[in-house]
Parts: sequence; C-alpha cells; structure tokens
Amino acid sequence: MHFLAFDHAFLSGLLGDEDIAALFTAEADIAAMLAFERALAQAEAAHGVITPEDADAILAGLAQASPDLDALKQGTAQDGVVIPAFVKQLRQAVGGKAAEKVHFGATSQDVIDTSLMLRLKQLVTLVDQRLDTISERLQALSDRQGGKRLMGHTRMQAAIPITVAARIASWRQPLDLYRLEAADLLAHGFALQFGGAAGTLEKLGDKAGAVRADLARRLELEDVPQWQSQRSRLVKIGDLLARISGSLGKMGQDVALLAEMGGEIKLSGGGGSSAMPHKQNPVAAEVLVSLARFNALQIGGLYQSLVHEQERSGAAWTLEWLLLPQMAVATGAALRLAAELVTSIQSLGQES
Amino acid sequence: MHFLAFDHAFLSGLLGDEDIAALFTAEADIAAMLAFERALAQAEAAHGVITPEDADAILAGLAQASPDLDALKQGTAQDGVVIPAFVKQLRQAVGGKAAEKVHFGATSQDVIDTSLMLRLKQLVTLVDQRLDTISERLQALSDRQGGKRLMGHTRMQAAIPITVAARIASWRQPLDLYRLEAADLLAHGFALQFGGAAGTLEKLGDKAGAVRADLARRLELEDVPQWQSQRSRLVKIGDLLARISGSLGKMGQDVALLAEMGGEIKLSGGGGSSAMPHKQNPVAAEVLVSLARFNALQIGGLYQSLVHEQERSGAAWTLEWLLLPQMAVATGAALRLAAELVTSIQSLGQES
Amino acid sequence: MHFLAFDHAFLSGLLGDEDIAALFTAEADIAAMLAFERALAQAEAAHGVITPEDADAILAGLAQASPDLDALKQGTAQDGVVIPAFVKQLRQAVGGKAAEKVHFGATSQDVIDTSLMLRLKQLVTLVDQRLDTISERLQALSDRQGGKRLMGHTRMQAAIPITVAARIASWRQPLDLYRLEAADLLAHGFALQFGGAAGTLEKLGDKAGAVRADLARRLELEDVPQWQSQRSRLVKIGDLLARISGSLGKMGQDVALLAEMGGEIKLSGGGGSSAMPHKQNPVAAEVLVSLARFNALQIGGLYQSLVHEQERSGAAWTLEWLLLPQMAVATGAALRLAAELVTSIQSLGQES
Amino acid sequence: MHFLAFDHAFLSGLLGDEDIAALFTAEADIAAMLAFERALAQAEAAHGVITPEDADAILAGLAQASPDLDALKQGTAQDGVVIPAFVKQLRQAVGGKAAEKVHFGATSQDVIDTSLMLRLKQLVTLVDQRLDTISERLQALSDRQGGKRLMGHTRMQAAIPITVAARIASWRQPLDLYRLEAADLLAHGFALQFGGAAGTLEKLGDKAGAVRADLARRLELEDVPQWQSQRSRLVKIGDLLARISGSLGKMGQDVALLAEMGGEIKLSGGGGSSAMPHKQNPVAAEVLVSLARFNALQIGGLYQSLVHEQERSGAAWTLEWLLLPQMAVATGAALRLAAELVTSIQSLGQES
Repeated sequence: MHFLAFDHAFLSGLLGDEDIAALFTAEADIAAMLAFERALAQAEAAHGVITPEDADAILAGLAQASPDLDALKQGTAQDGVVIPAFVKQLRQAVGGKAAEKVHFGATSQDVIDTSLMLRLKQLVTLVDQRLDTISERLQALSDRQGGKRLMGHTRMQAAIPITVAARIASWRQPLDLYRLEAADLLAHGFALQFGGAAGTLEKLGDKAGAVRADLARRLELEDVPQWQSQRSRLVKIGDLLARISGSLGKMGQDVALLAEMGGEIKLSGGGGSSAMPHKQNPVAAEVLVSLARFNALQIGGLYQSLVHEQERSGAAWTLEWLLLPQMAVATGAALRLAAELVTSIQSLGQES
Repeated sequence: MHFLAFDHAFLSGLLGDEDIAALFTAEADIAAMLAFERALAQAEAAHGVITPEDADAILAGLAQASPDLDALKQGTAQDGVVIPAFVKQLRQAVGGKAAEKVHFGATSQDVIDTSLMLRLKQLVTLVDQRLDTISERLQALSDRQGGKRLMGHTRMQAAIPITVAARIASWRQPLDLYRLEAADLLAHGFALQFGGAAGTLEKLGDKAGAVRADLARRLELEDVPQWQSQRSRLVKIGDLLARISGSLGKMGQDVALLAEMGGEIKLSGGGGSSAMPHKQNPVAAEVLVSLARFNALQIGGLYQSLVHEQERSGAAWTLEWLLLPQMAVATGAALRLAAELVTSIQSLGQES
Repeated sequence: MHFLAFDHAFLSGLLGDEDIAALFTAEADIAAMLAFERALAQAEAAHGVITPEDADAILAGLAQASPDLDALKQGTAQDGVVIPAFVKQLRQAVGGKAAEKVHFGATSQDVIDTSLMLRLKQLVTLVDQRLDTISERLQALSDRQGGKRLMGHTRMQAAIPITVAARIASWRQPLDLYRLEAADLLAHGFALQFGGAAGTLEKLGDKAGAVRADLARRLELEDVPQWQSQRSRLVKIGDLLARISGSLGKMGQDVALLAEMGGEIKLSGGGGSSAMPHKQNPVAAEVLVSLARFNALQIGGLYQSLVHEQERSGAAWTLEWLLLPQMAVATGAALRLAAELVTSIQSLGQES
Repeated sequence: MHFLAFDHAFLSGLLGDEDIAALFTAEADIAAMLAFERALAQAEAAHGVITPEDADAILAGLAQASPDLDALKQGTAQDGVVIPAFVKQLRQAVGGKAAEKVHFGATSQDVIDTSLMLRLKQLVTLVDQRLDTISERLQALSDRQGGKRLMGHTRMQAAIPITVAARIASWRQPLDLYRLEAADLLAHGFALQFGGAAGTLEKLGDKAGAVRADLARRLELEDVPQWQSQRSRLVKIGDLLARISGSLGKMGQDVALLAEMGGEIKLSGGGGSSAMPHKQNPVAAEVLVSLARFNALQIGGLYQSLVHEQERSGAAWTLEWLLLPQMAVATGAALRLAAELVTSIQSLGQES
C-alpha cells in the first residue's frame, strides 16, 4: 500500500527517487543478506571453521534460495527482526547436515547491519555521482552567467551588488566539500558488523579475528571490531546526507527568493496553478527547502539512537530502520531536483 | 517500490498498519477530493453560483471519472501539486460547457487540505476506537491482577511496593484523557478549507459565505474562515497523535524493564533470536518506544511548518505531506502493538 | 555566569525576557516550593494528619527560612534534585519536634512539579496578556491600513491582490484562538502533583484524598490523581507555547519578505549594519523566525519525555527542566518582539 | 537573571560546566572580537591597506578599550548584532583619524563568526582533554575489573555472559574515535571568516587574499574563502559534540540499568531521596541520558540553519547563537559527569 509521499502513486513524481529507493526494498536487503551469508560460509571454510563440503552445499543452496516474503513478514512481526525466519528458510534451501552451518556464529545484527552498510555504500556512491553532476552544472552556469551582477542580500535586505559567480560559488563549494567527505567515507566509513550473539564471536574461538578479516575483505567493507551498540558510524553517514540536503535547501531558498523578487532570474518549466494560470511556481526550489527541513528532523533520531542500551537495543535499532531509508530517499530526491533546478536556470543576475 | 519500514515487504509485519495506511493512499485521497468537487458543485448550484444543469453534468461526469494516475504523477512533478492535472482530468470527464464549472472558485489548497481533513477525521475515529479497546483491556487486566504487589521504581531504583492497579492506572489514565480530546476534536477540530486563489473567495462574490457554509455541512466539517496559511489546527492533530504514541511508549518501556528484570511479568509470545533460542524478546514493548521517539521527531516538523510564509507556502506545505501520513501510521502501529501487548500480559506483579 | 543568549550580557537585549525569566529563577522556584510546604502543613493539620501546633511551628519556621543556595547547589549535584537539601534546611529552620512533620508524606516530585505548575500558570497568564496586546495592535493596524491593497503571494509568487485586512487577519486569528486555549488551560490545565514516595500517598492513609483536595484548593490548582509519570499535561503547555511562537514566526517571515521585496511596507526603527549604513534590517521579524524554529526543536524533547519509565524517570524529568524554561522565555521574547514589530509598521500595502 | 538549568543557582550544580560556560560569556566573546580587530589592523598594515601609524593607534586604543556592556546590549536589541555598537565604542577608544580604520573592510559576520571559531577551538581542546581522562579511567577500570563476567543483554533480555572488558570497550571505543576526530578538527576544522559586506572583500581590492591569509595566520585559524552563508562547518562541530554526548548517554543508560537490576555493579556516592532514605539513585548515569537527548534535539536546529538564505540570514544565524553555547555546555557537563561516574564504579560484573 503506497501511502507515504516518497512512494505515493502521484506524490512520488515530485518527492520520490526510484534509484535510491531500490536500495532499501526487501529485495535489495535480501540480496545483501545473502551476500553476507555466502561470504560467511566461504570465510569460515577458508579458516577451517566449517568444512569445504558444508560451504559448497551452503553456496549451492543459497544460489537457489527464493525467500518466501509472507513468511518473512510473519517472522518479523513475531521476532522483531527478519533473521530467524530468514535463516530458517535458508537452512531449508540448503538442507542436509550443512544446513546447520548456515549463519554459523553470526547473529541477527551481524546480517542486518552488514546488509545496511553494503547498501549505504552504494547509496553514497550514487550520491557522490549526483553531487558531481550538480557541481559541473553549477560550474557551467557560472561560466555562462558568472560575470553578471546580482544584488547581494544580507538579513533579508539588499546590501551591495555581488557577482553571479559569487552566489553560485556559495552553492557549489559545500557540494565539493561533500564530495571529499563522500570519498573519505567510501574509503573508510563502511564497516562489517560481525560479533555473534553478544559481540564476542564466542563460537569461532581463536579463528574469530581471521574469519572477520576475511569476511570484510570478501564484502569490500572495513574490518573493525563489532560495533553493534556503537552507532556513531551510522550517525556520520546520516550527518553527511542531512548536510547535503541542507545545503541544497539553501540553494532552493535562494532561487525561490530570486523568483519571488523577480528581475534577476529566469527559470524554464515551473509549476502551474489550478486557480491562476499566469503563475510559474518555483516548485523544485521550494521542495528543496522541504527536504532539507525533513532530513534535519530525521537526523535528530539517529542521535537519539546513540543511547543504545547494553549489547543491542531493540528500540533504538528499530528507530534507525524507520529513519535511514527515508533520509536516503529524501537526499536522493533533493539531488535529483537540484540537478533539474540548475538546468532550468536560463538566466541569472543582470548585465552590468 | 516498498522501501519504507511502514510498508516494506517484511518490516511492515512489525511496523505497518494497513487500516490506517489506507487513509493516505492516492486512492483515498482521490475519493476525498472527488467528494469535495461534488459537494462544491452542489453547494454552488444551491446558491445560484452555477446552474443546476451544470451541477448535474458535473455530478454525472465525476461519477464516472477514473483518474489516470500516471498523468497525475507527471502533473504533480510539474506543478508541485496534483490539482491542475486532476481538475483537467475531471473537466475532460465532464465535458461540454459544464466542464469549466468544475472546481469553480476553488484552488489547489482548498481541495488538498479539505481532503486531508476528511481523512484525518476518519483517522481520529479509528484511533479513538483503538484507544477504547486498549483501555478496556487494561481495565480487565487491572480487574484480574490489580490487587497484586509490584515493586515501585523511581529513578531506576526500587522504591517501595505499589499495587499492580496503580501501575496500570498510570498507563490507562492518559489514554482515557486522549479519548476525551479525540471526542473534542471530532466535534470541532476538522474544518473545511475553502478560500479560492488567495483566500478571498473572490469569484463567489456575496455568495461566498453561504456556499462555504453549505459545503462544510455537506462534507460534515466545521465551517470556518479559510486557514490556508494558519496551520495550527494540523499541529493540534499531530500533537494528539504524538502524545498518544508517547504514552504508549511509556507503557512499552515499563514492560521492557519488567521483562528485563524478570520475576514480576509473564508475557506470552515474544520474539525469538537467531543466535539464542532461549530468549523471548519483548518486541512489541520495544517497538512502542521506537514509535514514540519517531513521532516525537516528526511532530517537530509540524511546528516548523507554522512558519508558513504569505498566503501559501510550498515548502512548509510539502513538509506536512511528508510527515502527517507517517505520524498517522506510526500511531496506528503503536495502538495495534499496545493492544497486543496488553493481551500478552499473562501475569503482572507478585502475590502479596 | 551568563553565557546563554537568553540571559547573555548583551544578546539578552535582543533575545531575553526578564519578566518571564523571573518565573524560572531559583528564587521563584524556592518561593513556590515554600508555598507548597506551607499549604501542605495547613492541609494536613486541617485533616488531622499533623497537629495544629506542628503546623503553626512549621508556618512560623518557613516564614523566616532563608535558604542557603550554595548548600542547595551542592545537594542538587549530589541527589539530582534539590529537595533533600531543601527539606533539610527547612527542618532546621523549623526545629523542635515539628521539624519532622515538614514535607510529611510528600516526595521530591510533589514539590518540584507543583512549583513548576504554579509558575507555568503565571506564565500563561502573562502570555495571555501579551497575546491580547498584540491582537489589539493588529486590530488597530487593520482599522488604519486594512482597506489597502496587498499583493497576495502563494508558493513564493505573486498571485492576486488581497486586502491588507486579509493578511493581518491571518496573523491575528491564530492569536485569538490561542487566547481561548490559554483561558481553557488557566481554568483546568494546571494541576497539583501530590503522590508521595511512589504515588500512593501511603503515609496519609484514609486522609489522602481529603488532604490532596485541600492542598489543591489552597494552591489554586486542579485536584487530580498524581500524574508523576504521566507527562502529557506538560506537553500540552509546551505545545501552546510552541504554536504561539510558530504563528508569530509566520508573521515575522511575512514582514521580512515584505521588507525584502520593498514597496508595500514601511517600518520604523530596524537594525543597522556595521558595513552598510544604508541598510535597515528587519531584525525583530527575523528573530521571530529564529524563535519559532527554536521552540519547534525544544518541544520535540517534551514528547520524548513522555517515555517516562516506571514511577519516576530521572532522565526524562531532568530533560524537561532543560527545556521548559527556555521555551517559556523564547515565547516571551517572541511576544515582546511581535508587539514591537506591529507597532513599528507605519504603512502596509498600497492605496488601491 | 539565572533561570536556565545550565547556570541556575542550584541546578547548575548538577547540569552546569563553568569552564566551558566561560567560553561563551560576553567577556570571552569581547576578548575574541578584540583579538580579531587587532589582528585585522596588523594584517592590513602589513599589506599596506592601512598605514602603520593607524595600526599602532588602533592597537593602542584597543588595548585600553573597556566596552560598555549596557550600550552593547542596547545596540544588539536595535541592530540584531552587537557589532555596530561595538565598533562604535572601539572607534571612540581609538579616536583621531585612525578611528575610521578600525574594522576596515570587515562586516559584522566576520567578527562574530571568527570569534565563535576561536572559542569553539578552545572548546574542542577542552573536550579532547576530558575525553582523554575518561578513556584513561575506563582503561584503568578495565584493567582492574575487565576479567570478570557480566551478563550480556540484547533487546532488554539476558543473552549470554560477556566479559566486563567487552562492555567497557563498548563505552571506550567511541571516545577514542572522537579523539581522532577532535584532532582532525583542531588541525583543519576551525576557519577564519572574512568576507566584508557581502562576501567579496571589495574594500581591500587586490590585497584581499593576502590580508585574509595573514589574518588567519595571526589568529591560528584556517585560511579559507568566506563561508558566511555556508554553515556546514558549524554543523560538523555540533555533530561531534552531539555524538560525544550521545555515546556518553549510552554509558549512562547502561549504568542505570545495571544499578536497577542490581548485583553486577557497585557505585559509590549516588543521590538521596527526600522520601526514601534507603535509595541510592544513579543520578550521574541518568543525567547523561538527559544530556544526550538534549543535544540530539539542539543539533537538529543546526541542520535547519543550513537553509541560510542569500548572503547572510539573520534568522538562521540567530538560531545558531541560541543553540551552540548550550550544546557546548551540555557536552561539557556530560563529560564531567561521565568522568565522575567512571570513578564511582567500585565494582562491575561478577567473579566467574
């Protein structure tokens, strides 16, 4: 049932982002969780925790597993997490004595957090590409229009004239900084979660460190000690998303003000009104402000979730699930709209 | 694409609420918007703003209108609101000279805000019924277990024994107060929005007041002056939802603490663990805390949206669209889980 | 050490509100707490819980008690609440055998929450008076300027002309509604908290109800069952404050936009710039927006505090202490600035 | 008037932090603003923008300037910023023809934002030292108690035993990561703001770049292009503070739960109750949770302030002033309490 604006039958035309939403569907999650279970079997076999035969049987079984979504839904309702039902289905798919070696030594959080990290890494890759596009378009706009004059405004009052290039630089510079941060995150920010029942990998004995390192390598994630109750790294990712949408919101607000005051901007497209056919509403600009404020709300919940009691907090963890996907899609929609908005600027500033 | 936890293929088993989500789909919105346009034609005909023949043609046309969702989506992407595309489709469905009388004198915000009010009214009716159910179950629980002794805790320390009845009363009293507030809202809190292009109903001349009153009566909403830039009444509805989920979160937190400390509560059901089959996680209790914190975040955005510039703010209005449906469903899920949780309490407190 | 903007040596000129800040000082709190302890002794004597002689001794002692603030500070650091140190000082001031009857049957939360309620009641009285002032000034402005024409703006675009009266009505109507809500709160919203150690008034035996009713009457507060873990009534008060500052923020945003676009508003006063002497910044208007957004943040914490575990939550309760006073002063500053802003509007709209 | 909990006459014993509050008083701000104006005169003289004689006169005048706080307060009330009144006082102190060269080419935001950066840099230095202290104490605690057994809890249920060392590591690891981030910020995160009236340093002509670089060097801040409408770097500082208090809140929650369940922790000190002398409330632990949630609220406003319209937003900027000082002090108080809390842990876990 599509009832939320981000995937609503018609509101999603304005507010959705299919490419980024695709990273957070059940299908994408299942694919990433299967990747975890596969890599786990391989790493455990490589280090003698399970036999090569069991690993082969697991890989073969997982390759043809086709999860029953209704049973997963029922299982999640019961257990609060999908993993007990999911692992049960995988074990049925594997069958035989290898079945019990599926998911060996791992716990729900290992699979769910690692799946999330795999997909957030894809997200940041996409976000980075879009930042690049917008930055290039802003540069091109500056090349075309930058020499013109624009009235600078401070505290909602005309101040002194600035160049169009200066205003565009104030939109572009943050995006270029975010690209540096995204590169940094992509290099070091996405980490394997692997700790077992209570974080101690107690079932792997002295192989624990080697298996974890191997698993991280196979999944192309950082190898770090389990962080199941240390949620700071998720906040950092959310922080980047919220600063990106915030800075795009600043551009949106500027464009909306330019459009309202008139005379210094010409936009193609623009929204129509049911009552006033003469109007051209700066829709994308306004929605950038909405999305900035939206993410500024959601990010607060990630900070709240740092109060993550004991070895695993059901309450704080579930809250993250409610927040991160919509922050990702809100950021995606903001990037999409910002790219369109820059393209729609036909003229900016006044000839001096 | 179902990517948000509330309607995710498997997470929705835990976090969704189909009955309440149904109020916020495109279908439900369209049905309510059609109700508005129908009642508008009737009211305008009753007061001589349009002819009876035009009204009949409009009603006939609307009765068989079958909106093209793809076109609505494209229109929303273009205009920032669905109404221009929607009204265009309705006029095509009506045809002839009556077509131009569809939506006469109204503007986008009239239709969208009124449709929202109609559905929020249904929401509060549902919420009220569920509060009643939970309150009754708590009363029954108190009847059965209330005489037992429970260790009272203040500041995370055992204080002195209280009765089970006293603890249950602290869960139930807020719900009974919310029922009074819901009744109050149902009596007076849901208002027609009708103002035309800029709030002045300028096309209706001296019939404006009469048409508005008639329209309100037909839609069973309060007849009040247009409130298109005065969003306080939406905040009040959100406030009730967030206080409800907050108080249910308190009950959830209490139950989770009882379950953790052991000895004073016995729950049936409870979630399993993929790593530790012996555990019975108090899943519903934890998720009540998550949903309380979730709504506490979202409501902040409704207060931000009070800064609603001029006659209509695209930015603040769009932000509301992103927040209210998920607050409604989060509240719905909390009510559903709370009802289940109370039922699952098999024993509370100790025999004295 | 004055380091927060609300009472900073120079920022408070812009952001402070002395009359309202005065309600939240240690002195005001102590005065209200003494009122509680006095009324408690009187009510307990009236119902035979303590002797008339003890009550007389308590009243005499309290009349000359002069709390040692350093000891209270040290006590609060130790106990997390001021009451153990405070009651100890009071008992010393009373002396003799009556000393142990000071605070008889009450607990920390009874005194602190009741003191808060007494002062919030004064706050809402002040807020209501200021709303009245602003509403009257807006009415006077409408009487003078209301017939003029103003360009209506929707979605940051000129729409159609409206009257100045219509715009002013959109600022004033919410304030008049808030006055009704304030009246309602003043009639029923401020409640005695009285429950004893764990909410059961166990030391008062069968006199508990009568003492509580008498105590409420003496303090002019509502007599309701203890609500120590039910924080909804504090959220309701915060909600009113945040909606007031939000609606004033809307007026501020409108004025700032009018000032930026020029031509339709003339303001007296206005802020100077260190770099551009020609500018007249609409300072009060901007700060109304800041204060609206500030309160929209803080109120979220009151909803978070509804997750108030067991009989008394140190964590959630302490969070309220951090939030409510600054919400009160932010609302006060907004009301002060709004009254000034309306007065500074010399002309609005254009002659038609 | 001390009415906010952080500097309230007795609540500050629990919630205040004098060392960190001292960075945000008017006195500290004035000292930093004077440092800016001094270094500006020196840098401008070094590059021939003003004469050496004027620079000498300015330095001499500033050395004996003694700001009139009442006039600054009145000026701030009028202008929305202190700088016009402040510069006027400085010019009076300097006198003669050099007076007009005070603040030459700079604007309000240059002085205020740079003063903030200077003080935030001191803040992060202090924060880093305190993190170090807590980390060391946790290490020492782990050395003493780490080999003992602790029941691991996931989802509010006993899971399997872990070591005390593992639990302490989950508290300490985030702090060590924050120290790395603090070092990174101290190396590159604190930047000069210098742009003149509208960001273009138009009065400095072709000396602009050289003066800015020299000014940055003298103030030991990064030399970067003006960032007056790009607030991302302030968010990053706030983000670090909020993650620090969030992770300390997790430790607080854990300790409070240990204290509630009993048997595995022994704390010295602890708060008393006015009604129940037998109780030892884990006050510091609870307040860590309050402060974590407090900062999680405030940080949302920094993200909102990214929507910073045009060359300078009065509204968004003023909002930052309301938030950052209290975030700093909340973080300081959390660090202070956390250090005390760790010291108070006399025993953790059970002998195995």
